[in-house]
Amino acid sequence: MNENIKNIAVIGLGLIGSSILHALKLNFKNKFYITAYDINSKNRKVVRELKIADKVCEKIAVSVQNADLIFLSVPVGVVGEVAKNISPFLKKGAIVTDTGSTKLSVIRDVRPFFSKNICFIPSHPLAGTEHSGPESGFASLFKNRYWIIIGEKNDQNVKKLDRILSKIGAYVELMDADYHDRILAITSHLPHLIAFTIVGTASDLEMDIKNDVIRFSATGFRDFTRLASSDPTMWRDVFINNTDSVLEMLQRFNEDLTELQKLIRKKDSSKLYDFFSRTKRIRSQIIEAGQHEPEYKKKK
Amino acid sequence: MNENIKNIAVIGLGLIGSSILHALKLNFKNKFYITAYDINSKNRKVVRELKIADKVCEKIAVSVQNADLIFLSVPVGVVGEVAKNISPFLKKGAIVTDTGSTKLSVIRDVRPFFSKNICFIPSHPLAGTEHSGPESGFASLFKNRYWIIIGEKNDQNVKKLDRILSKIGAYVELMDADYHDRILAITSHLPHLIAFTIVGTASDLEMDIKNDVIRFSATGFRDFTRLASSDPTMWRDVFINNTDSVLEMLQRFNEDLTELQKLIRKKDSSKLYDFFSRTKRIRSQIIEAGQHEPEYKKKK
Repeated sequence: MNENIKNIAVIGLGLIGSSILHALKLNFKNKFYITAYDINSKNRKVVRELKIADKVCEKIAVSVQNADLIFLSVPVGVVGEVAKNISPFLKKGAIVTDTGSTKLSVIRDVRPFFSKNICFIPSHPLAGTEHSGPESGFASLFKNRYWIIIGEKNDQNVKKLDRILSKIGAYVELMDADYHDRILAITSHLPHLIAFTIVGTASDLEMDIKNDVIRFSATGFRDFTRLASSDPTMWRDVFINNTDSVLEMLQRFNEDLTELQKLIRKKDSSKLYDFFSRTKRIRSQIIEAGQHEPEYKKKK
Repeated sequence: MNENIKNIAVIGLGLIGSSILHALKLNFKNKFYITAYDINSKNRKVVRELKIADKVCEKIAVSVQNADLIFLSVPVGVVGEVAKNISPFLKKGAIVTDTGSTKLSVIRDVRPFFSKNICFIPSHPLAGTEHSGPESGFASLFKNRYWIIIGEKNDQNVKKLDRILSKIGAYVELMDADYHDRILAITSHLPHLIAFTIVGTASDLEMDIKNDVIRFSATGFRDFTRLASSDPTMWRDVFINNTDSVLEMLQRFNEDLTELQKLIRKKDSSKLYDFFSRTKRIRSQIIEAGQHEPEYKKKK
């Protein structure tokens, strides 16, 4: 198992990168020699103090030069630049994966910098919290969560990556980049966009009412503020890089919202009732699918 | 304390009504004689089996005729009709409250049916779950949650109601009906409307992608499905009865969403970053205000 992988590098030590370090340490003990790097010296310091990497490098080149597997857990907006920076130092045959929330853009930005000797396997863990930074990472972040790989199931390198991700608790799923970006546009990017918007709308209210919005937020609004407090850099990059799929889903959403707005204005009680009954069913399907709680128990 | 209140009637035995019964029983033991009524015989049967009322009445008139305090926990769309039905049977001096999510419409619909001898105090517990029906009720639903009363703090009847609600764990807040409806429009009604819309948008997707939306819903979408699975009757009535405030907030939301859509289309990374940073602050304020967890510990 993982016969060729001895050295692992994790580049980018935010919530995801530091959680990968925690998870590797917990599940593999000392099986790998693990280096870590972040452009931000504060993040390097935190990871050094957490003792979750064998070596925290001051230079990205040092971190990747002996690595058989490299995780690029950096914002999708800079992953191309990071790929460019590391490419001269990569070992022949090295596997590079990323953890970005958009996949078409990452492939577009990363591929040009890697020679044929480098195996780039884009991936995306469907896991996260509203917290960011290396101090927010934890070993079970990927446990029972999907980790999507853009690759072929018979590819030996995909299998190696799959075994490592499965061992840290993730459910590995293979799909193509275009499909990934559409699914994520509706399940993640649009919900976050909407959440950012509504929280923005509330914060523009006059001061008096705004304070009461905060006090009485438990009635629905609070769920949105959790989504809307996620890392701004990450989300800016997502919307800039999955623009087409997000705008397509947003257009569908806008049409539906306009329709619902009309029904409210007309006080069309029977059509409103039908609409609100229909959405209840999707919730039931999600509960049946075992996705209702973060630590769902669904077997692959 | 509650010197004049001996008999209580709870009309409407859904999630809220049955939770009131549970909470009264738990916190007051046998202090009150409590009757219950629901137009639906199935709900009456469940409450009878739960043994949370002293008497479950077959007729609404019997339920209210001796009551000193009456809770109308029925959908806001029928509360006027219920008020009309009970008014001939009410005791002189009886206090009637309701639990509806809109207050201007309830006052408009209810007041005409009550003589000067009846004290109507509109109220609204900011508590609920995505489940409905008497079997979903529980005694701590109102614990550490706000319960808004539309009334004056020196009114003796308001004080009586306050004491009972405080005893079952609620934080009583007084405000006027118009302000209530505006606050709820942004903290509860608009978030639910948005959630219903986005879940509706997803359920219109082609079957393949829809199944994967359900599988991968943990990434943001799931939070919306919880809101969108709330009781359709209740929500239809809310939107028909708080139309002005909801449409006003919806218009502000639409303007903000259009603005954000433009920034995405133009890939304006610096303005997107600013927007996403700003909304993070509201979350921090909510956490400071102690509203981040359902069972928050905030002292009045």
